[in-house]
Amino acid sequence: MAELSVYEVLNRKRRREALEPAIIEEIIKRYTAGTMPDYQMSALLMAIAINGMTGEETAALTQAMLRSGEEWALRDHYDFIADKHSTGGVGDKVSLVLSPWVAACGVKIGMLSGRGLGHTGGTLDKLEAIPGFKARLSRKEFDKCVADAGCVISTSTEGVAPADKKIYALRDVTGTVESLPLITASIMSKKLAMGASALILDVKTGSGAFMRKYEDSKALAKSLIAAAKGSGTKVEALITDMDRPLGVAAGNANEIVETLDVLRGKGPKDVEEVTRAQGVRILMMSGRFDEKSATKALDDALQSGRAYKQAEKWIAAQGGDPTHLPQPRETIEVKAPRSGFITAIDTYQAGMLTVDLGAGRKKAEDAIDYAAGVIFDRNVGDQVRSGDTIARIQLGATKRDANELRQRFLSFVQFGDTAPAKRPLIHEHLT
Amino acid sequence: MAELSVYEVLNRKRRREALEPAIIEEIIKRYTAGTMPDYQMSALLMAIAINGMTGEETAALTQAMLRSGEEWALRDHYDFIADKHSTGGVGDKVSLVLSPWVAACGVKIGMLSGRGLGHTGGTLDKLEAIPGFKARLSRKEFDKCVADAGCVISTSTEGVAPADKKIYALRDVTGTVESLPLITASIMSKKLAMGASALILDVKTGSGAFMRKYEDSKALAKSLIAAAKGSGTKVEALITDMDRPLGVAAGNANEIVETLDVLRGKGPKDVEEVTRAQGVRILMMSGRFDEKSATKALDDALQSGRAYKQAEKWIAAQGGDPTHLPQPRETIEVKAPRSGFITAIDTYQAGMLTVDLGAGRKKAEDAIDYAAGVIFDRNVGDQVRSGDTIARIQLGATKRDANELRQRFLSFVQFGDTAPAKRPLIHEHLT
Repeated sequence: MAELSVYEVLNRKRRREALEPAIIEEIIKRYTAGTMPDYQMSALLMAIAINGMTGEETAALTQAMLRSGEEWALRDHYDFIADKHSTGGVGDKVSLVLSPWVAACGVKIGMLSGRGLGHTGGTLDKLEAIPGFKARLSRKEFDKCVADAGCVISTSTEGVAPADKKIYALRDVTGTVESLPLITASIMSKKLAMGASALILDVKTGSGAFMRKYEDSKALAKSLIAAAKGSGTKVEALITDMDRPLGVAAGNANEIVETLDVLRGKGPKDVEEVTRAQGVRILMMSGRFDEKSATKALDDALQSGRAYKQAEKWIAAQGGDPTHLPQPRETIEVKAPRSGFITAIDTYQAGMLTVDLGAGRKKAEDAIDYAAGVIFDRNVGDQVRSGDTIARIQLGATKRDANELRQRFLSFVQFGDTAPAKRPLIHEHLT
Repeated sequence: MAELSVYEVLNRKRRREALEPAIIEEIIKRYTAGTMPDYQMSALLMAIAINGMTGEETAALTQAMLRSGEEWALRDHYDFIADKHSTGGVGDKVSLVLSPWVAACGVKIGMLSGRGLGHTGGTLDKLEAIPGFKARLSRKEFDKCVADAGCVISTSTEGVAPADKKIYALRDVTGTVESLPLITASIMSKKLAMGASALILDVKTGSGAFMRKYEDSKALAKSLIAAAKGSGTKVEALITDMDRPLGVAAGNANEIVETLDVLRGKGPKDVEEVTRAQGVRILMMSGRFDEKSATKALDDALQSGRAYKQAEKWIAAQGGDPTHLPQPRETIEVKAPRSGFITAIDTYQAGMLTVDLGAGRKKAEDAIDYAAGVIFDRNVGDQVRSGDTIARIQLGATKRDANELRQRFLSFVQFGDTAPAKRPLIHEHLT
């Protein structure tokens, strides 16, 4: 396609015409190779962000981006290995709990994960709170960890979907981050480049989710599933609740503590429930379990202590020692200003508080303060008495004004006289 | 506005929000200064091309672009001086006829004009067919020509609206040429930077126009007029017909011949009518004429030979000698293949034929063959007999296959048994 006119492609996309897969492939090839300038790609990204893409175009974009780099094709090297992706939330440590728990049931997990940006935490940041934990693995080390511990969570390598890295950096500075087809292609190009046997998507919805509105979350879930059609990776999605922080801890070191608590059967029940739902789906996708036997296998693994032991083995396999986690220098208690019920927590604001404490990043180059975070002792729906401790704000390296932080915390929490309507934790299962 | 986030501006325009004039001004300032990268500007241009702009935004963009460079403010240096702009057409030599004709009525004309690109010819290219004609004038030479000959047509200088030059070059390669607010700002920033007392816009409509559909032409005319609000330049527009070639000649040297014919009262009547309509508007805008006296003044100037004499004086003032124009090396006659009426000429195709003959440019860097062009001996509505010569194709430096050219010509001309409905030459006058 030497005579492809990028100018004409841009004209067509501006007029909302669908582009053929071969054209999308050629565009991505040229952009990755550096023979198409940024100013043409950014115009195309803006046209896509405004005019959208058909399902076929989105799938073609995903395919083109995944083919821009290494393809791991994990499913060719394992009988069955599952991957998982979350669209991100506050207190979302599900990947950490899920991996050893499922591995303890004899089903392998291989995950490439990312760092946090904005109000949602990043799985790798949480793992790197563990002294010694090595997140950047070669393919060989990745396989060795699966062999030794049944599961692995590694950072994405440079070689996987380089088109995504280049395009994401451009979207970030051109106002084209919010776009269903571009989000879909970004997520799925990396996931499909890994090529696990199965992929479970945890699409969050609510005030702390990337997509706040239910219909947007569902559209994203459907788009992600559609983009994987014909790829050889079986994809299912659960839409789960992120209208309140998940579990008790939001941060990094504190979420590792909570992860191990859940794996000991002593953690918050919401984390356990959301993780179990995904575990059941993965076990079923392996073909070796039905819903009943999957649930039983997971319960057995938890109650027997095998899930926890698997976690110890896994963390050790990646070089980590979770017995010496970074500790907060100071903890600020937040008290309920009145009696009643917690009726709402703006979970986005809660996430931004953890970011400001140092637990997350505003810019990609920001450093993480692993000890910082928030413990939500009470959550949405809980009844409180005036003066009860509802949260503990954990300070890391930086000293902060306690009253200012308390005030800020209370600014995004609502109280009422009656309990709010209960939202389910698991909204919907999509295949 | 040091803290302006271009990223946020792009997000807003993607969501179809209107941008404040101060933000538009800052964006144009940064882009012209080179502190905003092309990839952000191209994303903004695409967002504007798809989502449009309000009238206020378009005016602000126009103002920002005109302020990016020199402002001539001609109206401050002359009692009254008029400018004219055409959106371009095939055989459109109206500017050439209009300038000396109006000057012969004692009203000054100062025009900065452009070269042709695509199917429409360029006023400067036509003038440069005249041996010795100097199109690139300094401000001082410009004023001297007005003083000596009452009118001048010069190329735009580097210093006028540099933002437009930079933005136009980017639009050209990013599929964002077709956009009402961007077209408006491009045209009007240059025109308002000159700052004549009055500006008459000739907005063409039909198969040979930039805007083929009447409603699009009218929207463009309205947008151009609106962008000048409060600028100090009085702007009016005529929507004129370009559904057939204007006059007889399309090319460069041949249009100079026709221009002089019209100014001698011996040219095609359609050119005379379209030019007179614009001349009347300019004379009226000067405040020294009403419609009746303006028409009479123009008719007198033509019949007395003063208009023609003014043209000779003007061309000489810019160094040109029209007595030795480039001549075609060969002329190919095209005969009517049947008897009947010419019911339609696809005027865009007619224009592209002249481009292919060398009379126009496909790319900005193409050279012009001044002798090449087409003479339309018969036009839409004319009755012909089989075998009548309906056109003469004039070859310049390059030899071409005669039968192929004849065939191509006939491919865009339609014949029928009855005369087509007559379209008016002047469709509408907008103020």
